[in-house]
Amino acid sequence: MKTSKNVSTFMGFDNEYEESSIIVFGSPFDGTTSFRPGTRFAPNIMRNESYGLETYSPYLDKDLECVNVFDAGDLEFPFGNTEKVLNLIYEFASEIVRDDKTPVMIGGEHLVSLPAINAVYEKYNHMYLIHFDAHTDLREDYMGEKLSHASVIKRVWDFLGDNKIYQFGIRSGEKTEFEWAKEHTNLTKFSCDGLAEAVKEIGNSPVYITIDLDVLDPSIFSGTGTPEPGGITFKEMVEAINLMKDLNIVGADIVELSPQYDTSGVSNAVACKILRELVLAISK
Amino acid sequence: MKTSKNVSTFMGFDNEYEESSIIVFGSPFDGTTSFRPGTRFAPNIMRNESYGLETYSPYLDKDLECVNVFDAGDLEFPFGNTEKVLNLIYEFASEIVRDDKTPVMIGGEHLVSLPAINAVYEKYNHMYLIHFDAHTDLREDYMGEKLSHASVIKRVWDFLGDNKIYQFGIRSGEKTEFEWAKEHTNLTKFSCDGLAEAVKEIGNSPVYITIDLDVLDPSIFSGTGTPEPGGITFKEMVEAINLMKDLNIVGADIVELSPQYDTSGVSNAVACKILRELVLAISK
Amino acid sequence: MKTSKNVSTFMGFDNEYEESSIIVFGSPFDGTTSFRPGTRFAPNIMRNESYGLETYSPYLDKDLECVNVFDAGDLEFPFGNTEKVLNLIYEFASEIVRDDKTPVMIGGEHLVSLPAINAVYEKYNHMYLIHFDAHTDLREDYMGEKLSHASVIKRVWDFLGDNKIYQFGIRSGEKTEFEWAKEHTNLTKFSCDGLAEAVKEIGNSPVYITIDLDVLDPSIFSGTGTPEPGGITFKEMVEAINLMKDLNIVGADIVELSPQYDTSGVSNAVACKILRELVLAISK
Amino acid sequence: MKTSKNVSTFMGFDNEYEESSIIVFGSPFDGTTSFRPGTRFAPNIMRNESYGLETYSPYLDKDLECVNVFDAGDLEFPFGNTEKVLNLIYEFASEIVRDDKTPVMIGGEHLVSLPAINAVYEKYNHMYLIHFDAHTDLREDYMGEKLSHASVIKRVWDFLGDNKIYQFGIRSGEKTEFEWAKEHTNLTKFSCDGLAEAVKEIGNSPVYITIDLDVLDPSIFSGTGTPEPGGITFKEMVEAINLMKDLNIVGADIVELSPQYDTSGVSNAVACKILRELVLAISK
Amino acid sequence: MKTSKNVSTFMGFDNEYEESSIIVFGSPFDGTTSFRPGTRFAPNIMRNESYGLETYSPYLDKDLECVNVFDAGDLEFPFGNTEKVLNLIYEFASEIVRDDKTPVMIGGEHLVSLPAINAVYEKYNHMYLIHFDAHTDLREDYMGEKLSHASVIKRVWDFLGDNKIYQFGIRSGEKTEFEWAKEHTNLTKFSCDGLAEAVKEIGNSPVYITIDLDVLDPSIFSGTGTPEPGGITFKEMVEAINLMKDLNIVGADIVELSPQYDTSGVSNAVACKILRELVLAISK
Amino acid sequence: MKTSKNVSTFMGFDNEYEESSIIVFGSPFDGTTSFRPGTRFAPNIMRNESYGLETYSPYLDKDLECVNVFDAGDLEFPFGNTEKVLNLIYEFASEIVRDDKTPVMIGGEHLVSLPAINAVYEKYNHMYLIHFDAHTDLREDYMGEKLSHASVIKRVWDFLGDNKIYQFGIRSGEKTEFEWAKEHTNLTKFSCDGLAEAVKEIGNSPVYITIDLDVLDPSIFSGTGTPEPGGITFKEMVEAINLMKDLNIVGADIVELSPQYDTSGVSNAVACKILRELVLAISK
Repeated sequence: MKTSKNVSTFMGFDNEYEESSIIVFGSPFDGTTSFRPGTRFAPNIMRNESYGLETYSPYLDKDLECVNVFDAGDLEFPFGNTEKVLNLIYEFASEIVRDDKTPVMIGGEHLVSLPAINAVYEKYNHMYLIHFDAHTDLREDYMGEKLSHASVIKRVWDFLGDNKIYQFGIRSGEKTEFEWAKEHTNLTKFSCDGLAEAVKEIGNSPVYITIDLDVLDPSIFSGTGTPEPGGITFKEMVEAINLMKDLNIVGADIVELSPQYDTSGVSNAVACKILRELVLAISK
Repeated sequence: MKTSKNVSTFMGFDNEYEESSIIVFGSPFDGTTSFRPGTRFAPNIMRNESYGLETYSPYLDKDLECVNVFDAGDLEFPFGNTEKVLNLIYEFASEIVRDDKTPVMIGGEHLVSLPAINAVYEKYNHMYLIHFDAHTDLREDYMGEKLSHASVIKRVWDFLGDNKIYQFGIRSGEKTEFEWAKEHTNLTKFSCDGLAEAVKEIGNSPVYITIDLDVLDPSIFSGTGTPEPGGITFKEMVEAINLMKDLNIVGADIVELSPQYDTSGVSNAVACKILRELVLAISK
Repeated sequence: MKTSKNVSTFMGFDNEYEESSIIVFGSPFDGTTSFRPGTRFAPNIMRNESYGLETYSPYLDKDLECVNVFDAGDLEFPFGNTEKVLNLIYEFASEIVRDDKTPVMIGGEHLVSLPAINAVYEKYNHMYLIHFDAHTDLREDYMGEKLSHASVIKRVWDFLGDNKIYQFGIRSGEKTEFEWAKEHTNLTKFSCDGLAEAVKEIGNSPVYITIDLDVLDPSIFSGTGTPEPGGITFKEMVEAINLMKDLNIVGADIVELSPQYDTSGVSNAVACKILRELVLAISK
Repeated sequence: MKTSKNVSTFMGFDNEYEESSIIVFGSPFDGTTSFRPGTRFAPNIMRNESYGLETYSPYLDKDLECVNVFDAGDLEFPFGNTEKVLNLIYEFASEIVRDDKTPVMIGGEHLVSLPAINAVYEKYNHMYLIHFDAHTDLREDYMGEKLSHASVIKRVWDFLGDNKIYQFGIRSGEKTEFEWAKEHTNLTKFSCDGLAEAVKEIGNSPVYITIDLDVLDPSIFSGTGTPEPGGITFKEMVEAINLMKDLNIVGADIVELSPQYDTSGVSNAVACKILRELVLAISK
Repeated sequence: MKTSKNVSTFMGFDNEYEESSIIVFGSPFDGTTSFRPGTRFAPNIMRNESYGLETYSPYLDKDLECVNVFDAGDLEFPFGNTEKVLNLIYEFASEIVRDDKTPVMIGGEHLVSLPAINAVYEKYNHMYLIHFDAHTDLREDYMGEKLSHASVIKRVWDFLGDNKIYQFGIRSGEKTEFEWAKEHTNLTKFSCDGLAEAVKEIGNSPVYITIDLDVLDPSIFSGTGTPEPGGITFKEMVEAINLMKDLNIVGADIVELSPQYDTSGVSNAVACKILRELVLAISK
Repeated sequence: MKTSKNVSTFMGFDNEYEESSIIVFGSPFDGTTSFRPGTRFAPNIMRNESYGLETYSPYLDKDLECVNVFDAGDLEFPFGNTEKVLNLIYEFASEIVRDDKTPVMIGGEHLVSLPAINAVYEKYNHMYLIHFDAHTDLREDYMGEKLSHASVIKRVWDFLGDNKIYQFGIRSGEKTEFEWAKEHTNLTKFSCDGLAEAVKEIGNSPVYITIDLDVLDPSIFSGTGTPEPGGITFKEMVEAINLMKDLNIVGADIVELSPQYDTSGVSNAVACKILRELVLAISK
């Protein structure tokens, strides 16, 4: 008989905090989204929909049942106060890092990556960033706001500095952003070409992976606020994760699923499967 | 910091089993649904959407925060095997009754009421049934199947017998069902007229309440498999619950929410609010 | 074993043409729809969805199984040629009338009523028209076009003349249309008040009933191109049909269901149920 | 030939600023929405959908063609910065008031009413507020934030003070909010009963009208973030506007349409029609 | 004039039973679907939507107008009784086979393939099976049920035995299923590589083709209960059919279209086109 | 303060008519659409959704901010009168051509291309046509109508004659259409293979480009009335535009976006991006 409370976690992430090396949590924030909001719904939907998957990956030949992952649920945010939200994420990610565990965050919009990356960076000062996205995210500000989904990588550059950021799949931005990137980041347009070399260059250094899911072509991932045709395929994304599986990954996030724009549920399935692959790749 | 597992309950139903007098659980089964399936999704959606409500009812001037309710989550069913599913519900409801607690079940299709009513009846042999529905549910069988959403009240009559069943809001069925009802149940067409008298007649006897939400007009409740225009309003439903609040309610269920047919979320909100009112009415 | 072709008719309309006194057919045309097209999909969807209903009406205590109705399917139209479409409807309705049967047409947009009413009028020169609608439909032309959904009743008036048209539920139109109506038709704003008197005045004279389903409040009928809040309820519509059941009805139509705007299926159910009531009311 | 730029205004609001006494503008902000965002899309959708209406109101027997109204389009907001957004609204509304014109704002979420009411209050210190809503909106703060859609009327009370606020249709809130209202506002639960007396009491004093459209029953208005069954009908809303038409209305807004939750377009039509009636009622 | 009943068949499948060598029929059953039901709606929707296609295939340079196919409509099933449903399919398919015609079944969930394959196997004991799917479908049971969509190919193996089953496009399953397949079936992960060799190996032997449409990538086929990104493209599916067109195909089915998950209608179009190609490939 | 009227144009097309060399306008007509209407909504939706894009193209390394384009808004059409609609388009396009500007039209259904091409042809008698489409559009008539979306290219051939029309991506049509094309047009099945040679053959001659967006695979463009799987990718379309960028383009159109069939908004984004690329390619 069921007399204990109803627990809801991602499929396979049902270990206890203490015994887990990977801590998954949701940051359901979409406060600076300029076009179409809705990424706040992503982590909860993904928990529900993950049960359509299997725990076994035929890509990596690994199984979530053999991995220790804890799902902490979603952080609770005060709506309308961007700074407080970012602080709450920073504090939670910092505690995970302090406990020598790896944070894997589910957005929310891309701005939530900033405090998570920052928290990891406090421990790993020579950290690299691998960034998958359709957009450069390199604006200095968006309508005057420096804390914006459109400037999140620029804000990360503020502390990571030059030659630490690899960008893949980029196909949208202002001309000036593309030009700025030539001097300060390693930006690859349209595809993941060059990822293998990036992996070699990074070697054993700590690296954070941030996947804005709109890097995927909207044919397979329409559930996002600003769909950009011309993206990478699901197979290319899975191959990219496979390429990175021997890196020293110290943090990761997947962001920008906005479930209500894809009523078929395919985008949810894609996000869940990429999360599975990512967690399997991080786990050793 | 959040290091305990992510718990998901209906808003306000966050007590422990032992301390609770009302036990809520979900029966996500829609295996005999003939027209449009989907009620299996109801209990989980309702948990999520309940957080759009308040715990306080201005109708009953009562607050869920002052009531001890436990949400046991959903039962897990083998798909395609109707009998096993009904047995699982029967067993779980029986245990709740044995622990002197009141079961409140969330469907699922209406057939799930059969084992729950049966379990309660084992203890309360002189029990009455108050039945809200658009449909008579009095067929002897449906395409040869005696265990069907369309014959659930007939199956309940098999053990309750004559003069124990009150039906309200009925507006669809075969001619022979309406005629049969004249002899064996107390059937009110189209409305809840006569509920006050029924309440008087029942007095202190134990009573089970089964609410097929399609009793509501589809203008306010379109999220159901077989919408039947001409139903009662939300205010009439709330007033009906209010009328019944001094009865000796020994079990209850609300069934037939099929969330995917109402993409606006209104039907979910209606179901959640009726559940809140029902639980507040049952609690003393 | 099923070795005969797959037949698709409205539920209960499965008699042969010769033995039937009522002939139902679809006119899937929406070529002059100015705002949101889609009524072309109505007759076919209604055939499919009708099987969610019962053949028995608890309102009229009559059953479709005791009535002889033939469903002729849909007429086939050349798209983009309004005049040819209207001619095809006129010819088909004329043949039904010539065979001493009653045509009941499913639109399509409201303009399809013009040729059907015309065909019936050829036989019944002193015919009345009872018109349920949210809109006056009394424009002389719409953007220069005299054959338009917005001028269909004006075109009918061209041959019926003054004092033959009763309009109910009207709540939208140009000021000049409402003023014109004061002289030429019997227009009731917002409701069906006065229908009982109209029925008395018409007495045994032949009468055609045209129901633009947008006369219903969009709370219960959102599946239409131009929803107009403030309409009549489903119960008022059913009562109106009940009031008219002793009239000498020589033709009827229901138009302007646009199924894709109501994804819940409620509007389809409403349209099917009104068609059932209408056909039961016509049958003697 | 069309060689001038494409202008997009609400139907009938096509006058120039200088010649107009009523200025309509959109405030597409939903930054503090806690449950389901989307009201940012309302003003633009309403402009498009307004062309399904007629300019003539058979309720008030008045026509938008005889009224001078200017549609200023939408204000442009920096996303993620609540205070800046409120300042921009305050400034724009202040200029309208300074030019002796009446602002009519289209939200956005309910918080946008705060700066608009404040701007009008600067000129009319003895102003009353008539507030239609499903929710009390009287929290002191929401998760720590004092500037929230859930506390907007409390913030207005901060400067209007006791006995100036009439609330109608309220059916959701915390118990403490309902209790606080007993001392400080004139709150009517569930309906608009008492509006006629309120109108008498206000007499010639200046009054601002704020309509949170979720005061309507979700059967007719499902396009909102937090649907609350048990609301008023469209006819009751139109009658309420009619009752207020001789008041000295110095400002007004309608807020909380969230178009994407009602894919049928009915909610858009309702919002447009209420805007038409409201503007016709304000115009003398 | 149309005085014969309204016939509804797939486009081009309008021959009589006796003159046809291919018999198409629908099995609208989804009773063991564990995740998201809805495949019951597929055959009827496909009939309607097929009229958006042409009868001519530019891929095979063949035309349905030159092929004799009979569409028997849908079998009628008792809901909730899995065994009876499977028996009805078995009996119908057996009669088709006995009449020396080729059955082509439209699901429904994948479990419906079991009785159809069984019926064909009774006649062709040395038959092969070519199986396109995202899932292995090789579980021994699913939550205790041996008759499940997740174990259908295992059940077929029970009588076909080793070395008779070719599986293509597989990308989801439990680790043990993939391992079991290594011994007992010929399983190709992710793609249709090796189909040409399989065709050669089968030669003139009788072969049954079962296409679970979720073998397609959800970018082109999102209308299915359990979408699995990483599938084959439409062109690859068409090429696969082309490769098989000289085989001795004695039966076939396409299953798992769930139309309501793809509101765009693309999945319906894909399913119809694959059915057209499949039937053209079978016909000699 | 905003005291000028609300202007609505495609992003970046905000120049004045006189200073612009490219004139964009919408032809919201879908009157001959036989299957699923809705292209009438395309131009207006595209204006709204274009603001999700950037003005800069990383494909062509050009920016709309450096191009002079005027958006004239939509033509207004009388519904139900095909010939009048075509005349209105012809007249507007003729004036643009007479002013030595290049018309770029947004449909609407494909038939709107006929008068636009005709108007351009009046000036450029030796003009070529490059036609991207899933369908041949070469029928002599459709259900007796010679002016149909299904015969538009045949009607253009009536005046352009043999050897002037290049067709790409074609994968649907009657067998006779494909055969006719062998003699009279240059038709490429399934792909854009051969476009580079076509560009060479055309050289400096004037050329009109008509893009029926259903040439794209429905995986990336599901928002169209008759989706045809097996189409070209977005990247192939962008490459095709790139290939044509040095041609002497004297007119162009993109047609057949039907936004309501793709609720994700991806199809709108695709159409907007192709329009951006097309306009950037035309501008010198």
